[in-house]
Amino acid sequence: MSADVSPATRSVLGRGLAVLGTFTPDRPEQTLRAIAQASGLPSATAYRLVAELVGWGALERVARGRYRVGMRLWEIGSLAPVARGLRDAALPVLQDLCAVTGYPVHLVVLDGTHALFLERLAGHTRLELRSQVGKRLPLHASGPGKVLLAHAPPDVLDAVLAGGLPRVASGTITDPGRLTAALAEIRRTGHCLSREEMTDGAASVAAPVVGPAGEVLAGISVVVPSDTENLALLVPAVRMAATAVSRSLFTEWERPLTPDRGGGHTPGP
Amino acid sequence: MSADVSPATRSVLGRGLAVLGTFTPDRPEQTLRAIAQASGLPSATAYRLVAELVGWGALERVARGRYRVGMRLWEIGSLAPVARGLRDAALPVLQDLCAVTGYPVHLVVLDGTHALFLERLAGHTRLELRSQVGKRLPLHASGPGKVLLAHAPPDVLDAVLAGGLPRVASGTITDPGRLTAALAEIRRTGHCLSREEMTDGAASVAAPVVGPAGEVLAGISVVVPSDTENLALLVPAVRMAATAVSRSLFTEWERPLTPDRGGGHTPGP
Repeated sequence: MSADVSPATRSVLGRGLAVLGTFTPDRPEQTLRAIAQASGLPSATAYRLVAELVGWGALERVARGRYRVGMRLWEIGSLAPVARGLRDAALPVLQDLCAVTGYPVHLVVLDGTHALFLERLAGHTRLELRSQVGKRLPLHASGPGKVLLAHAPPDVLDAVLAGGLPRVASGTITDPGRLTAALAEIRRTGHCLSREEMTDGAASVAAPVVGPAGEVLAGISVVVPSDTENLALLVPAVRMAATAVSRSLFTEWERPLTPDRGGGHTPGP
Repeated sequence: MSADVSPATRSVLGRGLAVLGTFTPDRPEQTLRAIAQASGLPSATAYRLVAELVGWGALERVARGRYRVGMRLWEIGSLAPVARGLRDAALPVLQDLCAVTGYPVHLVVLDGTHALFLERLAGHTRLELRSQVGKRLPLHASGPGKVLLAHAPPDVLDAVLAGGLPRVASGTITDPGRLTAALAEIRRTGHCLSREEMTDGAASVAAPVVGPAGEVLAGISVVVPSDTENLALLVPAVRMAATAVSRSLFTEWERPLTPDRGGGHTPGP
């Protein structure tokens, strides 16, 4: 992704973060030249910042002058509450769901106007999916994404609709009216059935993980071959898993304090 | 941890990274004051850097003036090869091992002179363990740690011995001669049995994940109650799991190019 602030106005720390931000699931390994281009920084600056990031362990150098994200950044990233609270609570349940259905399962949260895949257990299935831990995918084109969108603030839906609902697979919902109707159906039924909306050949059943105040925290899904008949028979298993995660979260989860959502926290001493 | 370089000589990026480095598994949420103290930075500097890290998404502000690691840092950290290659290859096998034994399983790699816990599947066990994804623990005091130490370069063992083998639990090996003998036994047998070395009440069986050139890449362990008799009966299951991970890695894994290990890579175009 290219920089949204001109390099000259960014601080040195901002430039260092811009270097880190050039690493994405589609570009996990990059040359110095690619890093400089994607961050909009002069080569000499990029070189100096990359050297400092390597020295600290945020990046590491691999063969052929390429760089990738280092173990130390993974360690610190693992401290994020999405990785700790939600994932830790969900993992045993996801293991069960994967074991009893025999299919890949996903744990997905809302990240701006995208679905962020927090966890994926594939078991032994050889379904080729687009999902990947840490990857962001469009909200409108996956089961858990639509579950999150159905319960997101209206401005998120506005932003998604403004993005034009790009087609990702043969069954992707690209019509705003159909998407709105699908979201209403998700709110009404409490689950979501999808066929070939993200990946041709795959269908999914998704349900929301709900927090103590009724807010939707995450979506859970099971992915099956798209020719699976009677997909709805999987709904109870997925909803059982989602409610099990909800229950185990009730005492553990604390939401971030974001300006737009306020939160009723009173400042402590 | 306190800073090892005087703040005045660190670059702005270095100071920002020092702020990130104050977050640890034992301190996942911190006040600004704690961040300033741990990083050795003046409060005003720490405040400015934290604000910039929050703006970018590396940190997020929670209630009561506390900060924690943000989702964006988790996303980028997820791109680290330890999280992608090794963990992705190991996860289905770890799921199986956890399911067939009914006990928690760990995937651990060497990180300097520590054991870094890459993955932990606890299933439904209520064993209270010290392990946590992204946490570093002493090499001499855990089964997978000793497996890694047994196959590490001699300078790693020297550094661990120089650290004085602190006692972590009632069974921790604190005598250099006993540790050296235990490591030789691990190399001879290909596995490691431990009782109450990391956590009172827990025992473990560990085995190495071996790379294509015979190098040890990781350790896998199963943790059981310490009063389990005939621990050795679990060895075949753990070794089967370790070899299954090794096999699935053969085509996927590429080691980082580090100065001390050289690597035979020739620079590409």
